[in-house]
Amino acid sequence: MKLKDYILQEIKEIPDFPKKGIIFKDIVPIFQNPKLVQQIINTKKELYQGKVDAVAGIESRGFLIGLPLALELNVPFVMIRKKGKLPPPVVSQTYKLEYGEATIEVQTEMIQKNQKILIHDDILATGGTALATISLIEKLGASVYGLDFLMEISDLGGKEKLKEYNVESIIN
Amino acid sequence: MKLKDYILQEIKEIPDFPKKGIIFKDIVPIFQNPKLVQQIINTKKELYQGKVDAVAGIESRGFLIGLPLALELNVPFVMIRKKGKLPPPVVSQTYKLEYGEATIEVQTEMIQKNQKILIHDDILATGGTALATISLIEKLGASVYGLDFLMEISDLGGKEKLKEYNVESIIN
Repeated sequence: MKLKDYILQEIKEIPDFPKKGIIFKDIVPIFQNPKLVQQIINTKKELYQGKVDAVAGIESRGFLIGLPLALELNVPFVMIRKKGKLPPPVVSQTYKLEYGEATIEVQTEMIQKNQKILIHDDILATGGTALATISLIEKLGASVYGLDFLMEISDLGGKEKLKEYNVESIIN
Repeated sequence: MKLKDYILQEIKEIPDFPKKGIIFKDIVPIFQNPKLVQQIINTKKELYQGKVDAVAGIESRGFLIGLPLALELNVPFVMIRKKGKLPPPVVSQTYKLEYGEATIEVQTEMIQKNQKILIHDDILATGGTALATISLIEKLGASVYGLDFLMEISDLGGKEKLKEYNVESIIN
């Protein structure tokens, strides 16, 4: 059995959560299995070893695999957080949601010019947060090495929006 | 120099954030230093090896050290999240904030009866979230082995509220 299949065994699909018509992919059960999580991290480490200067994890589930991956790669971990959570100086990026909008931020001192940054989040859905994170990184003069996910939900158009970038996920 | 001193070197104090009169302890810079983070995890691993059945991390900064610590201990990682983020079935606990209140949740299937759970968060301040997390765990028939933090802010009374429990932090 492949790593992908072990992960799929653990992911639960919850219909109509958080609202009617949405099938929620619950990744929480994966984290009950430390050996499986370590295998996910090891697989990702092989992809990026020696190629990236930092890992940027998107709050909050992007912190989960993002930090241990940065530790394995021996590079800094950068937190991308929701507006108002990080002390100044920060750069901000607002993006559209299905209803309304959201803003994410990063502290300017956490990213250096010309660094090659790997963005990590758990799930690629519409790609809105990922695109906003790319903007934050590029505003600070760094470049995006690639975008890394545990899982892509392919029918929501995220990969199409990110087609100029290197996108990796275990489940797609 | 001790681990504590290396960490203190990295923590920035930001006056009047998020509001006037509060000195914010910014732990984000620690995560720029992967060797230091690994040393923190190793130090905590020694405290808990073979003693706990799971680590519960409090969203979102408790996910940071919490998950890699669970991986090192080879035990499940349980997410304690803000209301509405986890699909049912969940148990909930509401607690008071300085102004208003907050609710945290855990999925019932993620904690088993009689498990000894280690709670992890980055900073112990007033202890409100920590006490609410204890309630969640005890509601599900498990017990709290202890509460683990990176740092305690001693003048906010958190440790006093948790005096019946084993509380560990590197900076206190």
